[in-house]
Amino acid sequence: MPQYKAPIRDIQFVMHELLNFEAHYDALPAYAGTNRELIDGVVEAAADFCENELSPINHSGDQEGCHFDNGVVTTPKGFKEAYKKYIDLGYPSMSVPVEHGGQGLPGSLGNAVSEMVGTANWSWGMYPGLSHGAVRTVEHHGSPEQKELYLSKLVSGEWTGTMCLTESHAGSDLGIIRTKAEPNADGSYSITGQKIFISAGEHDLADNIVHIVLARLPGAPKGTKGISLFIVPKFNVNADGSVGTRNNVVCGSIEHKMGIHGNATCVIVFEEAKGFLIGPENKGLNCMFTFMNTARIGTAVQGLAASEGAFQGALTYAKDRLAMRSLSGPKALDKEADPIIVHPAVRNMLLTQKAFAEGGRALVYFLSQFADVVEVTEDAEQRKAADDMLSLLTPIAKAFLTETGSESAKHGVQVYGGHGFIAEWGMEQIVRDTRISCLYEGTTEIQALDLLGRKVLSTQGAMLRNFTKIIHKFCEANAGNPAMAEFLQPLAELNKEWGDITTRIGMKAMQNPEEVGAAAVDYLYFSGYVTLAYLWARMVSVSLEKLAGDTTERAFYEAKVKTAQFYFKKLLPRTRSHVATIDTGLEPLMAMDVDQFAF
Amino acid sequence: MPQYKAPIRDIQFVMHELLNFEAHYDALPAYAGTNRELIDGVVEAAADFCENELSPINHSGDQEGCHFDNGVVTTPKGFKEAYKKYIDLGYPSMSVPVEHGGQGLPGSLGNAVSEMVGTANWSWGMYPGLSHGAVRTVEHHGSPEQKELYLSKLVSGEWTGTMCLTESHAGSDLGIIRTKAEPNADGSYSITGQKIFISAGEHDLADNIVHIVLARLPGAPKGTKGISLFIVPKFNVNADGSVGTRNNVVCGSIEHKMGIHGNATCVIVFEEAKGFLIGPENKGLNCMFTFMNTARIGTAVQGLAASEGAFQGALTYAKDRLAMRSLSGPKALDKEADPIIVHPAVRNMLLTQKAFAEGGRALVYFLSQFADVVEVTEDAEQRKAADDMLSLLTPIAKAFLTETGSESAKHGVQVYGGHGFIAEWGMEQIVRDTRISCLYEGTTEIQALDLLGRKVLSTQGAMLRNFTKIIHKFCEANAGNPAMAEFLQPLAELNKEWGDITTRIGMKAMQNPEEVGAAAVDYLYFSGYVTLAYLWARMVSVSLEKLAGDTTERAFYEAKVKTAQFYFKKLLPRTRSHVATIDTGLEPLMAMDVDQFAF
Repeated sequence: MPQYKAPIRDIQFVMHELLNFEAHYDALPAYAGTNRELIDGVVEAAADFCENELSPINHSGDQEGCHFDNGVVTTPKGFKEAYKKYIDLGYPSMSVPVEHGGQGLPGSLGNAVSEMVGTANWSWGMYPGLSHGAVRTVEHHGSPEQKELYLSKLVSGEWTGTMCLTESHAGSDLGIIRTKAEPNADGSYSITGQKIFISAGEHDLADNIVHIVLARLPGAPKGTKGISLFIVPKFNVNADGSVGTRNNVVCGSIEHKMGIHGNATCVIVFEEAKGFLIGPENKGLNCMFTFMNTARIGTAVQGLAASEGAFQGALTYAKDRLAMRSLSGPKALDKEADPIIVHPAVRNMLLTQKAFAEGGRALVYFLSQFADVVEVTEDAEQRKAADDMLSLLTPIAKAFLTETGSESAKHGVQVYGGHGFIAEWGMEQIVRDTRISCLYEGTTEIQALDLLGRKVLSTQGAMLRNFTKIIHKFCEANAGNPAMAEFLQPLAELNKEWGDITTRIGMKAMQNPEEVGAAAVDYLYFSGYVTLAYLWARMVSVSLEKLAGDTTERAFYEAKVKTAQFYFKKLLPRTRSHVATIDTGLEPLMAMDVDQFAF
Repeated sequence: MPQYKAPIRDIQFVMHELLNFEAHYDALPAYAGTNRELIDGVVEAAADFCENELSPINHSGDQEGCHFDNGVVTTPKGFKEAYKKYIDLGYPSMSVPVEHGGQGLPGSLGNAVSEMVGTANWSWGMYPGLSHGAVRTVEHHGSPEQKELYLSKLVSGEWTGTMCLTESHAGSDLGIIRTKAEPNADGSYSITGQKIFISAGEHDLADNIVHIVLARLPGAPKGTKGISLFIVPKFNVNADGSVGTRNNVVCGSIEHKMGIHGNATCVIVFEEAKGFLIGPENKGLNCMFTFMNTARIGTAVQGLAASEGAFQGALTYAKDRLAMRSLSGPKALDKEADPIIVHPAVRNMLLTQKAFAEGGRALVYFLSQFADVVEVTEDAEQRKAADDMLSLLTPIAKAFLTETGSESAKHGVQVYGGHGFIAEWGMEQIVRDTRISCLYEGTTEIQALDLLGRKVLSTQGAMLRNFTKIIHKFCEANAGNPAMAEFLQPLAELNKEWGDITTRIGMKAMQNPEEVGAAAVDYLYFSGYVTLAYLWARMVSVSLEKLAGDTTERAFYEAKVKTAQFYFKKLLPRTRSHVATIDTGLEPLMAMDVDQFAF
């Protein structure tokens, strides 16, 4: 079992050297004063917690899993104690505004903590993580009374929250949900229906669970425009805020699933449960969409976590495991074979993981700055600009980082050879745990449609041009540096090609809108590779500057440049396949009649 | 849980229409008379057994797993009964020569049975499957006495066999194994050591288990040239062939692993166990290499099985599951949403699975003909030609089909959305079960080195040219058919490119042998895509001929052509990335110092 080691140096590189978070915070009055000392203090304390409290119960939590007995869910050994410590350390309230009882620290700093929590123990991290959506729903859409009753306990972590969206027949397509809400005489609602895949829907970590439930009012319009949001607590809450009688909400069962065994994925049954409308009638999905981007960044973090975790595990083994001699002659003459890190194919897997982990970190933290701006700026124009960037880049980050996280996890197993298949080494757990990240919060295919259809084509390319202009300017600004040429030339070409293929797809889509569906997934991958290329080029630029000066960390910055070279030479060529595939269009996908698929 | 339905029509297409197995058998005196009636009879009977006996215990076997208690392994419910039926139906002896008590049917026909067994229940299939290596070892290298004592019981299936190769420190690199064999006065040997990853190493299906063990004699040369083979039975065998006293062989534990839970992966401990040398001293690895190709084709079947199984499951769900409307307008007006098979991204996943399953079937059956020839021809020249083709294509089939099988399994989960992550649907089991196929019998990276280094470059390209000539001739022979042009043009280009990139790599490798390691995995993928393109083009050629004539199965043949079009348009572009990546060479992989990978 690999012991998690928080990549503090790299987090600092991204936060201070690449993205200058200090200046970013200073430019936002709400976050001014969040200086380097504070940032590093938070990161280091969280690293300690994750390494020493969460990582040690990651594998055992997977092996033990959650237990279900007649509606009661017991989490794996150690989960409850770790959660108590997490509350005591104040993490649940970290990024919540002061006026709602939080510490008012930036969401982006919470994001750094989430990365470490998630890499150390994703299953555990989902318990507090899922509260986030509930907190934000109440924070943004709750009445003053609702805020008073629910928010402080959610913020302190004494209670946790869930988001109850999916029903067994309705996942990606929430417009067809059937859970209903009948108004009661007292202004409350009677909620009846069954929700599935409710992560952290029932557990033994907290005194109460506040479900945010999507349901339909009587006579509500069909489809997504007839969905409302309700607060449905597990235990009714008394007027003084204390936990009251049990509500008619029960956990019917927990799923047996591929991974995240330490997190309870629940069927939650509402039988005339008492609920309270939150936000306007029939506007439930709109209310939720306001923070869907941040939830999706949260899932992107899972992809980054898989790349980082699998990289750490594989690297340890690759240095240690002896097998065969290097093709250019023995390297470890005192040993009976060479450590497998001498073999190019093993290095290829390690460097792929490293490039996705560090590139993914850069992307997630980059995005979190836009999320900060959207959250707290009072300048409408600045907010619009940040929101547009966030809207464009979120589906890329969510889908691309989770898919590449799955790939990295696969390499983790492969580096271990047969041992990778064995549970005790911990590599196969990462494959199983991270597989869900490509499914929940919108599958890869849904993200791809969101990117190409809603974000790019629906804005006539305007959202895309916001970003390609930034890339273009970066290329221009660095054009004078010959050491950057090997990165800038392909980046500039790909950046131009991004616009070109968008135009080509757009033209075809005017003839047949299905062309969007045919191109979307390859388009998303292409976009992901270019986005990471931009961030890797920026990381090179920073590193070259440091190397030109007086630094004691030459090896660190050289490694950045070498990883970027690997990324540009070995991963970026994948764009060639995606472009070629996009250009073959819709027809090969639709030619087959449904009855011809099998005989 | 998907119920397995044997793809009989497609197996028949491959065996009769594409590869003309009747003529193939008639050309080999040992198999003459294996006519279509016999072939179809065997396939249909096996289909029935696999659908009705093995498929129903596939998911339950995964969920229950094997139980270990103090050296005793209990297989999941139903495994023992199914094994009894399998013996009663005579399957273990099917492809064994008549002189060794078998039915003397061709290995390629056994291969068709293996495909169905493996797709229905891979874990179960490994129990009889693993005997194969033991049978062949005794058959080819055993003394007359050893054959008499062990072979008939192995052939009948009353006993099973294993191959004990791996030790905890030595997997890919067998040259460093430590298990030792000390000669006894009576001519037997005393075997001491510990083997791991012994599939079917201990179980409750048979009365005895015959282990074939790699070990070192005293004073044996270092490395692979000092390894000998030994027969070590679980129970000593009396002179009359009956089961005698227990040998000092015990199962120390079974592994907890990602998948194939129904198969016991054992640690086998030999403590001065009684063993018998089989084959010449220190030539153990050579003896095993004689049938390594067929063992690897057996693993290639696992990849094909994953593609087929995941395709069947995904197709059922894609026709049934309703979510969202088609982008070109509603298709199922009577339903609240369209079945997801209308969406191009879903079709892309289904067609990818279908192209890999049917293409993989063609490749495996194509290879099995060469294996037949190697096995029974008395014409040395014919054997050499077949053996060369087998040697070239086996690493391609093994690695490419298992990797694409893993990809297909991934798509199976993805088509199911969140439900794909849930055990009861059976899709995630395929991902877990098939993951081992990229690791055992030589990892993908080992296969890639075998292909590019040993098979292609070591023969100065001669082995490759054997095959590219065949492709070239096929293209020439069909050049007059305009309906084939869309396939022949890209195939001919890729075929030429195959030679070109081989030359480029060969030139670089003369400067630095590590270039082979740097290029090998991409080269293997490239080779796999071209090989399948050739077989898909052949399948089109057959189908077009049928469509030009009078057939009642137009839909079947049209589907073949459409799947080929999909393959050429949507999957073959992947070669572009592999070529581009190959051409960036070794340097980006080796630049990083070992100490620079992490900070």
